[in-house]
Amino acid sequence: MTHGAAPRRRGRPARTAAETGPAARERILQAARAEFAQRGYDKTSVRGIGKAAGVDAALVHHYFGTKEEVFAAAVEVSFEPALAVPDILGGGREGVGERLVRSFIGVWENPATRAPLLAILRSALTHEAAAKVLRGFLLRRMLERIVADLDVPDSKLRAELAASHMIGIAVLRYVIQVEPLATVEPEEIVAMVAPTLQRYLTEA
Amino acid sequence: MTHGAAPRRRGRPARTAAETGPAARERILQAARAEFAQRGYDKTSVRGIGKAAGVDAALVHHYFGTKEEVFAAAVEVSFEPALAVPDILGGGREGVGERLVRSFIGVWENPATRAPLLAILRSALTHEAAAKVLRGFLLRRMLERIVADLDVPDSKLRAELAASHMIGIAVLRYVIQVEPLATVEPEEIVAMVAPTLQRYLTEA
Repeated sequence: MTHGAAPRRRGRPARTAAETGPAARERILQAARAEFAQRGYDKTSVRGIGKAAGVDAALVHHYFGTKEEVFAAAVEVSFEPALAVPDILGGGREGVGERLVRSFIGVWENPATRAPLLAILRSALTHEAAAKVLRGFLLRRMLERIVADLDVPDSKLRAELAASHMIGIAVLRYVIQVEPLATVEPEEIVAMVAPTLQRYLTEA
Repeated sequence: MTHGAAPRRRGRPARTAAETGPAARERILQAARAEFAQRGYDKTSVRGIGKAAGVDAALVHHYFGTKEEVFAAAVEVSFEPALAVPDILGGGREGVGERLVRSFIGVWENPATRAPLLAILRSALTHEAAAKVLRGFLLRRMLERIVADLDVPDSKLRAELAASHMIGIAVLRYVIQVEPLATVEPEEIVAMVAPTLQRYLTEA
């Protein structure tokens, strides 16, 4: 994967301001996302991420810590577009189910955002360290933000049931590819699933 | 894994009637299920399955064919308890959603049936050959049998959406283990999810 503004360098680069600033951090994050997506959790190393980003592995450690923590950051940045939580919750309770499923499907329909999400899902299903990261992320970032605005009993469980449905759709549509689910128009899924999410998120 | 009635033999066993009859077939199937569950799709071999069942690899081929076909048979036998489709559909449309989710959760709650299902899910998410088997199985056995009794438009898509929700619940409850979904009582899940499946399966 190449990044227009970030040509790869060979060998150990000198640390200039540009290489240790926010641009380098962003480049490392993009490289991490690409490495985890291409190689999976097991075969990705902090050294490899550094190499792909054109920086020293020590700089990866400096910004993100352990491999697990780099993975956590990559998960976060991968889900960020799906979250856009202010947009989803800002519109109020009415239609929140529809906005949530449309946003989720939109991120999965885009191949650039689908690849890292697939990698995360596969890694979480096969490695406890990755499962732990996804668990922490789902709880801390995604569900708690959605739950905070819900005024229903068992709101956490409800948010998780909504999330489970969307994850299951991603599995059957994009990984297992069962027909017709794999090829129906996204809006058909939105129309069918929105009432389910709406019920989980808003009806007591 | 040992099976009470089937002590392991060393070396190439002589084929007696008992070793090539239905008992041997069943023993191979149980061994295949255990091998795929323990080792995953990649690391399981027809030879290893034969060894675990105490029969020659040729007998495994004789009964089931290729590794992919052995996997397909193992998938089928693993899902069989969840299907019990006559029970689920025999009761009529009313309560079909509740019976379906209760049956599904019941199979996952039982550690003996959970292990092979987890193995199948993991394999399908990481190997196209395994995904193909699950796709074929989901379509041919599970969904078509459920769909046959539904008299709603888009019944196949609806059955897949119901399946997607249950698979997503399995992923979040048993693999990622997000709280509270991972520890709530099964009946709480049944109560929340039944109306969703009922709507997908019966409401136009």
